[in-house]
Amino acid sequence: MTDSDFRWLTDEEQRVWRTFMQAYRDFNAHLDRQLRRDSGMPVAYYEILVMLSEAPGRALRMGELAEKVSSSRSRLSHAVTALEKSGYVSRCAADGDRRGQVATLTETGYATLVAAAPGHVTEVRTHLFDLLTPEQLKALGDIAESMGAKMRGVCEVERAQDDEGCADDGC
Amino acid sequence: MTDSDFRWLTDEEQRVWRTFMQAYRDFNAHLDRQLRRDSGMPVAYYEILVMLSEAPGRALRMGELAEKVSSSRSRLSHAVTALEKSGYVSRCAADGDRRGQVATLTETGYATLVAAAPGHVTEVRTHLFDLLTPEQLKALGDIAESMGAKMRGVCEVERAQDDEGCADDGC
Repeated sequence: MTDSDFRWLTDEEQRVWRTFMQAYRDFNAHLDRQLRRDSGMPVAYYEILVMLSEAPGRALRMGELAEKVSSSRSRLSHAVTALEKSGYVSRCAADGDRRGQVATLTETGYATLVAAAPGHVTEVRTHLFDLLTPEQLKALGDIAESMGAKMRGVCEVERAQDDEGCADDGC
Repeated sequence: MTDSDFRWLTDEEQRVWRTFMQAYRDFNAHLDRQLRRDSGMPVAYYEILVMLSEAPGRALRMGELAEKVSSSRSRLSHAVTALEKSGYVSRCAADGDRRGQVATLTETGYATLVAAAPGHVTEVRTHLFDLLTPEQLKALGDIAESMGAKMRGVCEVERAQDDEGCADDGC
């Protein structure tokens, strides 16, 4: 293939990509700072608590939790260890599975999440949803659905590969 | 304020938010894995090389570079140290400013970026731009513009605060 055959982004796609990346990075960094400052945890930990709070019995197998927060098992395990130290999550062996583990949200973890939620939601509303027209809200939902559908299978395979590689790179 | 006064996300906003967050996290994790696997660097380092490659003389003051990649000065400094070790970037004192430093893309760094770009752009195209209708491309650009304009001032202040706090938390 010659260089001229390669499909680079068009000028318009390039502009949208740069603008989107910068805006999203700034937005996510802001959400992270707000949660660290006001609730003492990074946004990644908040999302783990949210997922557990919505599960039956406020508990999930580690593998299911990793999928819900788009994390490798090893990175999730590191986060759950920190959340255990804070008393927000407990971890125990899954029934009938010697290798499986279940993470459960504690009462302290639930109370912390309930206290953190209004501040976090206010930031998400102020810096995203309050800026959108109804048409933009619909478009954002449709774009996310298309991306999600395309990514789902790819990421399952890749997360499994991450887990296999983890013993080697010390993650 | 009572709980009923608080503006939680509507069901539709909540659905869009969850779908978007999961899709974006998966997408970004995928871009990161592809670049680590094929070009030996995380996506955050690739973006630093891109910004330097487009600057006059392929060089930027560290503060300007931090702003362009939405990073705190301390996190950027860590990344640039790693890029120096790889021989992709050099760093030296800025003329006429005892405290300032300038990062410059080396020839090796530029060649590495040129080699990495087609693989990265293919993933961005496959998993995002090829999925969008022209209307969705326009909507995504408009949404990103609104978010970016709203975030810009907030993040400048917050990044400065991050830098001030860095000596304390060891980042």
